[in-house]
Amino acid sequence: MSITVSATLAVNEALALRRHQGLPVLPMGFGEAGLPVHPVMRDALSTGGDQNGYGPVAGLRELREAAAGYWQRRDLPTDPDLVVAGPGSKPLLYALLLALGGDIAVAAPSWVSYAAQTQLAGSRPLFVPTPPAQGGVPDPELLVQAVTEARAAGRDVRAVITTSPDNPTGTVASRGTVRRLAQVARELDLVVISDEIYRDLVHAPTTVVHSPAEFAPERTVVTTGLSKNLALGGWRIGVVRLPHSELGRRLRADLLGIASEIWSSPSGPVQRAAAYAFGEPPEIVELVDRSRRLHGIVARAVAERFRAAGVTVVAPQAAFYLYPDFEAWRERLAAEHGVHTGPQLARMLLERYGMGALAAAEFGESADALRMRVATSLLYGETEEQRSGALEADDPTALPWIRAHLDRLSEVLDDVYRPERAVLGAAAG
Amino acid sequence: MSITVSATLAVNEALALRRHQGLPVLPMGFGEAGLPVHPVMRDALSTGGDQNGYGPVAGLRELREAAAGYWQRRDLPTDPDLVVAGPGSKPLLYALLLALGGDIAVAAPSWVSYAAQTQLAGSRPLFVPTPPAQGGVPDPELLVQAVTEARAAGRDVRAVITTSPDNPTGTVASRGTVRRLAQVARELDLVVISDEIYRDLVHAPTTVVHSPAEFAPERTVVTTGLSKNLALGGWRIGVVRLPHSELGRRLRADLLGIASEIWSSPSGPVQRAAAYAFGEPPEIVELVDRSRRLHGIVARAVAERFRAAGVTVVAPQAAFYLYPDFEAWRERLAAEHGVHTGPQLARMLLERYGMGALAAAEFGESADALRMRVATSLLYGETEEQRSGALEADDPTALPWIRAHLDRLSEVLDDVYRPERAVLGAAAG
Repeated sequence: MSITVSATLAVNEALALRRHQGLPVLPMGFGEAGLPVHPVMRDALSTGGDQNGYGPVAGLRELREAAAGYWQRRDLPTDPDLVVAGPGSKPLLYALLLALGGDIAVAAPSWVSYAAQTQLAGSRPLFVPTPPAQGGVPDPELLVQAVTEARAAGRDVRAVITTSPDNPTGTVASRGTVRRLAQVARELDLVVISDEIYRDLVHAPTTVVHSPAEFAPERTVVTTGLSKNLALGGWRIGVVRLPHSELGRRLRADLLGIASEIWSSPSGPVQRAAAYAFGEPPEIVELVDRSRRLHGIVARAVAERFRAAGVTVVAPQAAFYLYPDFEAWRERLAAEHGVHTGPQLARMLLERYGMGALAAAEFGESADALRMRVATSLLYGETEEQRSGALEADDPTALPWIRAHLDRLSEVLDDVYRPERAVLGAAAG
Repeated sequence: MSITVSATLAVNEALALRRHQGLPVLPMGFGEAGLPVHPVMRDALSTGGDQNGYGPVAGLRELREAAAGYWQRRDLPTDPDLVVAGPGSKPLLYALLLALGGDIAVAAPSWVSYAAQTQLAGSRPLFVPTPPAQGGVPDPELLVQAVTEARAAGRDVRAVITTSPDNPTGTVASRGTVRRLAQVARELDLVVISDEIYRDLVHAPTTVVHSPAEFAPERTVVTTGLSKNLALGGWRIGVVRLPHSELGRRLRADLLGIASEIWSSPSGPVQRAAAYAFGEPPEIVELVDRSRRLHGIVARAVAERFRAAGVTVVAPQAAFYLYPDFEAWRERLAAEHGVHTGPQLARMLLERYGMGALAAAEFGESADALRMRVATSLLYGETEEQRSGALEADDPTALPWIRAHLDRLSEVLDDVYRPERAVLGAAAG
């Protein structure tokens, strides 16, 4: 089987190479949280160092209980026996897709790996557009239409994936949309996989995240992890909450069978640390609060730079992503740069300016779309000191290294729009 | 897709439940190394705690370089760019099978997960018996025959998996067998996947382990990890060495694509610790030396108990497994216990005596075979103190807790063979 490296990871590696060569980079391609490890998490990992046995396939009881408590505090009552831990929520999603079989409906745009994993599992993704400014959740009425047509054409669609808060758009679907999605999933007899990895990273405390598990609890599988809220992506730990139903128990058995043959169990020391984190002691809660404040301030500042340059962008509500639309520049991009598609635009930004960004096509949209996902969380700094400083600053956008990134972004956008001024070209020459 | 939990992990969980209920157990079902974490490894893990970025899909350069050095010291020159790290060698094997596609020839008997993973990847295993007393490597002449026949029947066989030292038999294939296997693999144009996770655990320093990579370097993929030699199974780290050939470069690209969509990268702190271990500093070398001495002494003592009871067993040469054959007891088992198959025997041993052991059928042999895999490494003790004591003892079999396990084994075997004496039944009554 031939499959290329995940687009998000590929752009990360391309930028690392450029940096290594001493070339300037504007690192907005990769969705890594970009913050330091909290000392209590480092201690918890060290304490777990003696955890060298494989342990249960589903994960240590203390971790499953802590995760159940985490969901309980979010009004999703959870049986620890219906929690399964894995080495990231990504492998858990893959195992779920293998367990479910059949085709999967996903939002367009949506995170690059849903479609790739679906194909890896031997099925096909069915892309369904989202409602305006509500990323991550397929438009419920369009979902009915798409699934009905696909089934009429002989396709076996068994599940739908939702993401709220959303990657790539940084938006949060409304209660009404999530509720209606859950309702149509029930009518269509679809399992709902709700990826809630950004749940704790809403910028405004007043923004409420709704889960399909509130409205269709019997068929909703929820996944999360520590990669985004605690910036521990590289530690690799995720958890899945299976529904309290016959379906949930069947999925659990199949998931454990698959997990036992692919990864055995997640890393023991990391499980122990995760058990501590999901207990949400005060210092963890405070870290998450500070993080989401920082994500919000920088995402809004970046959105402002795009708008000032004449690029359309929906206001970010959560996480550290924006999904600017260069449609207004279409003629200009074609005439001045020979750029007609999203991937061409992404390549030009990467090659000419060292700006990492992913074209809408990577997220399941047409190559024609001039939308791009930019991630704002790697602008916080390159060193641990800079990142800690960003987390602690009253106004992170006033910090010189963040300010420099923002100014560079404006400069790049200006140069793309008005190449005749050749500001950067002149500087480089 | 429905797949049951890996047999080895399942028996582990069954015994844990029995122990929890206060029932006696003879834990010989699960292939966990059963030794404590070396303090230097705990320190190395703590030091790696700041590794929270995802890092390269292939693994950190320091880890890939250290693994290359490890192989170099074993006369297998290795390019760090052809090393890929994963969260255990198990996920790496699975990704390799997905990348290769097609059916896979495996030894009968062989580790439970080769066949299960092959099925999970959408292919079929082709079981080929091993030469007598040389587990893990399909008999080369039988392999030619089996692959030729399978291909004539339309099957697309693309690779063969070898394991030396072997699980489940604890034996090491001879140089002649490995060389001939490599030769026929070349003639048949098969990729060889050589699982060498037990390589460092040969009991006698004079026993040399040969790799198919010595004889067919252009087509041999080697996997290993820290689960067995350093007893770090629960930490989850493995590495694969791809061949220095066009095939190797193609496999690397496909493997990274698959890895990026299933697990992203192995846990960062664990990678850092593994980089330290693969450098083989003196304290690690000494730990491995002490471990293999312990494994050898206890495996030989257990083999002696089986032989004394009248059960045939090939002398163990490596790792911590034996593969006793109860064939001589066939009539007795049928008459006294109604046991006619390996799985029936395993069930009786588990249910009546709390003795964990896996039937040959789990390893791809016929259910009719009365062979069983027993693992000896969980006899070292239940506490860290006992296990450290076992590692340090001049004669571990004289330690009361290990002696008690050995005596219990003799008692169980005696009771199975002579139920009329009902020693254990009387004691229980």
